[in-house]
Amino acid sequence: MKETEIKKIENVKVTDDFWRRRMDVIRDEVIPYQWEAINDRIPDAPASHAIQNFRIAAGETSGEFFGFVFQDSDVAKWLEAVAYSLESDPNPELEKTADQVIELIERAQQKNGYLNTYFTVKEPEGKWSNLRDRHEMYCAGHMIEAAVAYYQVTGKRKLLDIMCRFADHINAVFGKEENKIPGYDGHQEIELALVKLYQETGLKRYLKLSKYFIDERGQKPHFFDYEKEARNDDKKFWWNDEYGDYSYHQAHLPVREQKEAIGHAVRAMYMYTAMADLARETGDESLKEACETLWENVTQRQMYITGGVGSQDFGEAFSFDYDLPNATCYTETCASIGLVFWAKRMLGIEKNRKYADVMERALYNGTISGMDLDGKKFFYVNPLEVWPKASEKRKDKEHVKPIRQKWYSCACCPPNLARLISSIGHYIYSTDRNEVFVHLYMGNESELDIGGQKVQIVQETKYPWDEHVKLTLTPETSSEFTMAVRIPGWCEGAILKVNGNIVEIPSCLKNGYAYLTRMWEKGDEIELFLPMPIERIRANPKVRENAGKVALQRGPVVYCLEEVDNGTNLSSIRLPQDAKLQGTFEENLLEGIYIITAQAEQVDETEWNEELYKPIEHKTKPFPLKAIPYYSWCNRKPGEMIVWIAEN
Amino acid sequence: MKETEIKKIENVKVTDDFWRRRMDVIRDEVIPYQWEAINDRIPDAPASHAIQNFRIAAGETSGEFFGFVFQDSDVAKWLEAVAYSLESDPNPELEKTADQVIELIERAQQKNGYLNTYFTVKEPEGKWSNLRDRHEMYCAGHMIEAAVAYYQVTGKRKLLDIMCRFADHINAVFGKEENKIPGYDGHQEIELALVKLYQETGLKRYLKLSKYFIDERGQKPHFFDYEKEARNDDKKFWWNDEYGDYSYHQAHLPVREQKEAIGHAVRAMYMYTAMADLARETGDESLKEACETLWENVTQRQMYITGGVGSQDFGEAFSFDYDLPNATCYTETCASIGLVFWAKRMLGIEKNRKYADVMERALYNGTISGMDLDGKKFFYVNPLEVWPKASEKRKDKEHVKPIRQKWYSCACCPPNLARLISSIGHYIYSTDRNEVFVHLYMGNESELDIGGQKVQIVQETKYPWDEHVKLTLTPETSSEFTMAVRIPGWCEGAILKVNGNIVEIPSCLKNGYAYLTRMWEKGDEIELFLPMPIERIRANPKVRENAGKVALQRGPVVYCLEEVDNGTNLSSIRLPQDAKLQGTFEENLLEGIYIITAQAEQVDETEWNEELYKPIEHKTKPFPLKAIPYYSWCNRKPGEMIVWIAEN
Repeated sequence: MKETEIKKIENVKVTDDFWRRRMDVIRDEVIPYQWEAINDRIPDAPASHAIQNFRIAAGETSGEFFGFVFQDSDVAKWLEAVAYSLESDPNPELEKTADQVIELIERAQQKNGYLNTYFTVKEPEGKWSNLRDRHEMYCAGHMIEAAVAYYQVTGKRKLLDIMCRFADHINAVFGKEENKIPGYDGHQEIELALVKLYQETGLKRYLKLSKYFIDERGQKPHFFDYEKEARNDDKKFWWNDEYGDYSYHQAHLPVREQKEAIGHAVRAMYMYTAMADLARETGDESLKEACETLWENVTQRQMYITGGVGSQDFGEAFSFDYDLPNATCYTETCASIGLVFWAKRMLGIEKNRKYADVMERALYNGTISGMDLDGKKFFYVNPLEVWPKASEKRKDKEHVKPIRQKWYSCACCPPNLARLISSIGHYIYSTDRNEVFVHLYMGNESELDIGGQKVQIVQETKYPWDEHVKLTLTPETSSEFTMAVRIPGWCEGAILKVNGNIVEIPSCLKNGYAYLTRMWEKGDEIELFLPMPIERIRANPKVRENAGKVALQRGPVVYCLEEVDNGTNLSSIRLPQDAKLQGTFEENLLEGIYIITAQAEQVDETEWNEELYKPIEHKTKPFPLKAIPYYSWCNRKPGEMIVWIAEN
Repeated sequence: MKETEIKKIENVKVTDDFWRRRMDVIRDEVIPYQWEAINDRIPDAPASHAIQNFRIAAGETSGEFFGFVFQDSDVAKWLEAVAYSLESDPNPELEKTADQVIELIERAQQKNGYLNTYFTVKEPEGKWSNLRDRHEMYCAGHMIEAAVAYYQVTGKRKLLDIMCRFADHINAVFGKEENKIPGYDGHQEIELALVKLYQETGLKRYLKLSKYFIDERGQKPHFFDYEKEARNDDKKFWWNDEYGDYSYHQAHLPVREQKEAIGHAVRAMYMYTAMADLARETGDESLKEACETLWENVTQRQMYITGGVGSQDFGEAFSFDYDLPNATCYTETCASIGLVFWAKRMLGIEKNRKYADVMERALYNGTISGMDLDGKKFFYVNPLEVWPKASEKRKDKEHVKPIRQKWYSCACCPPNLARLISSIGHYIYSTDRNEVFVHLYMGNESELDIGGQKVQIVQETKYPWDEHVKLTLTPETSSEFTMAVRIPGWCEGAILKVNGNIVEIPSCLKNGYAYLTRMWEKGDEIELFLPMPIERIRANPKVRENAGKVALQRGPVVYCLEEVDNGTNLSSIRLPQDAKLQGTFEENLLEGIYIITAQAEQVDETEWNEELYKPIEHKTKPFPLKAIPYYSWCNRKPGEMIVWIAEN
């Protein structure tokens, strides 16, 4: 097995207040609820049938397939979340349930390795006939990810073996060789999963297959046309742009020629993640450059301040540079999660805080906003501005729900959040030979393998609320290695100390990481003070939507105004440029948050009666503004919400 | 024939610079082009087939019906525009062509009076089976309007007789009596047309039929359900809201119970117009109150500053109070035209400048913006903010075209504008016994019938650019009557003179009209000075979209910024509250317009590189702002446009 920094960091025990609370919710609420859901035992939720589909495919019960073509992926994502949950919180009963599901999956697998309940049950003759729309490999990819995670955590190989058999089958069916299908999936996912499978098994054929899928994508003659012709399908695809039918799936150009994020945002994120994986694993410079170009495009042109991506409902997709409407965005939870995946892989290519900054931005804002605090309801769309009446009355805002929803029939986001949060410990560190990179700040107790020896690291912090982080190191024996700690891009004036002595950050800073190379002794302490003044953030003036507005941010946390705190018509509030912004930690509000208050102004409506338009002076009255972290909105009385506040 | 103030004012000869130019364009460009279009002689335009459909229906040629179910209405609106054009500009050749079309229409009429080429040719058994969707009476209504206009102008009865026969047939088919269909049309139009037919013929049955349609609308059990059942249609209607399937057609409630404008905006405007007609003709107080309530709702809650209505693309419809997005509105040209019709009818109920103010607002802004200056291209959607790239790339802005289009296949707006502009002289005055109301200011030479005698009125003005209006009266003999001249609601400090002597306006002002009652002699002059400072107009703070923004208006003309004058990214411009606004008449720009310039500011982008978000001070640099009348936008190089400008 190949040693690599992407390899799972073992023994990271998250002790963090902020994240542990979310992990508990996933463990206690989300995973059990999702289990009930995929077993159709939630009375008022839409039927899932996901487990039942496997039973039917296994020949153990009769009945029809029910659900989306990608229904199997709900089981896969549940299993992956279970694996990560078992890693931090062993639970023999849950593990037994998972084992039973895995046995069921094995029984549903066909002799040749094929595994997909939709095609097995409903359309056996249709296998591999419509890669563009039918998600066969997407489901396979999620199950491979689950298999790798489950093996890493439990040491049990069964699901890994099942998925190796399926991957081998796919490898036998797809490729450029004669008698193979020269194609790739319409929903990228297997590409990144195959890299994980390669990393875990060391079997190069999985890496090669992933590379084949990525290299082949967007080549001419176009595979989607080839398979359309083969199945006598002459219908125009519903998404169509200057690139024709293909850009929804990022298959409009060979991936190395793609310069701008386009199409379905989740597909894009998963593909870029795999591209970064492959660039690192194969040393492919042109692929690395493509990743970097796409990264710049997304994060400098098409990303919301919350780390959300996908500016439009149509196609749940990217639109174009600087088009970032707050009230009609899509910004799917899954897309922000995908951005986290991609950022992690970019850190695998290059240790540069710009990747960790975006990862952190998405983690503290646009991903966890997708779940309410008690883990019972979910946003798929994470808007930056909500007027509930508009969501109710306007078709073009129908997708923007003013309150989180229970389990959906297309249940992609909740299990995706479950697997991300359960595995949050994997995002804190990475190691590279005798270097340890500290990407994220959250309390944990870990044992890392650095240059062949074990080093215990205890990280203590009240991040993201508190400015202080302390890392205590305990190497087996004194040894020289490097601790590279990230100085976040949002932070001015950070102070770094080793054993109480200030280290001049500029002297050791490279790409945003402070490199501390020395003989580390047991009990050595690294302390970091990350000043977190409340910042007024402006958007690039090319973002027309945010002209004249500011967003409030403190540390990595983006704030918003809610109606429950600020009354109705949030657009009538003005934040004077010289208003003092005050921060207070409110222990009992929304599980403990740092709030921001200010003496702001509000348009004085007293001279307005029933007129709609008139020449009148702009008059304001004092207004006490109260902002809360964006992720925590919509956990009290539903109402309006804005992130971008008008300035005076 | 009943004498009424709605009756056509004869002998109004428009001499006005502003409007005469538009009438010429309609006469020289639009009417001939539309004639070619409905005869399928425009090479690059979508096929119309409208005349051919009549030939087929008349049995004079073979072939299939082609086009929308309402294709006949294109011919009707063309004929109506021709009639009004002949009124101001006699043209024997054009009249001969129209006569031939009318003869063709007669030959296409069925023996029982029925007239609709779609059902005659394509679906004879389907007549009157789907009033909700099939527009049979909508087409009838437009042809009735054409018939009345053509008779009034030319004195030729043929089309009037044809349409009386059809109206009589409809009267025999529809009603509450047994063996009649208890229904009404899905697209209101015949209701207002029947009132015109009644006013012209004096035949009460047409008024009664109109009243029946209006009274029956929205009653339970619902007619749309009745006819759905009759044709075994169990499909859900595509528009659905808290009122079910009916509000798209304003058939969700009996009309007197409707308090808010809802559904398809053009349908709404035509219905409210008919309601006002009926309220006046029948003295029905409850109907009058309903009109007033709806008027307040539309003009105080759901109308754009341009006189546009219809806040959303979906259903080309109203959305809800104060929801007035600038970049995703529908604001169809036809809906603004409908608002003009309705305003004129409200003036028939009550002489109150609030109706004329709105009529004027729509006329100088949201209607004529629908046509380019040379009459060759048209907007259906009249947005208040355009970012061409967003129109190209975003599905939810696809309906907002950044440039006017040629003749559409659904060609409702161009002929609607043609008939409105050709008949603009009919909107200037109304008479009520021995009172003359001057609603609009535009140059004209007219002969009005006042209390039994002819009075010549010459109105001279360079409105809307110039503040001075002069009316010279020439009664046959000296006689006492009232000249009631409107003091526009936008105007502060108007000065009124009779024969050079100032009249104290407050002393004679009633509902916005200055009543001048006296013995009028030949050569008496009324002069009006309407100060037109450039105004910064604000929207009611409940209009979230326009928070922190102002629109510029001078007289009745609303202004906008275009990219061709102000560069790209118009949202980066700030108009300081104390910036001096300067007006200049530019003879050679856009056929002569008054422009507004100001020393404004623009966000200084020099400190922005590739970042998307950062804490940075708001810095601006001086920016010379140039605004042009909204109606004239998109007549030069296409690009961005905004009406609402950010303030500093």
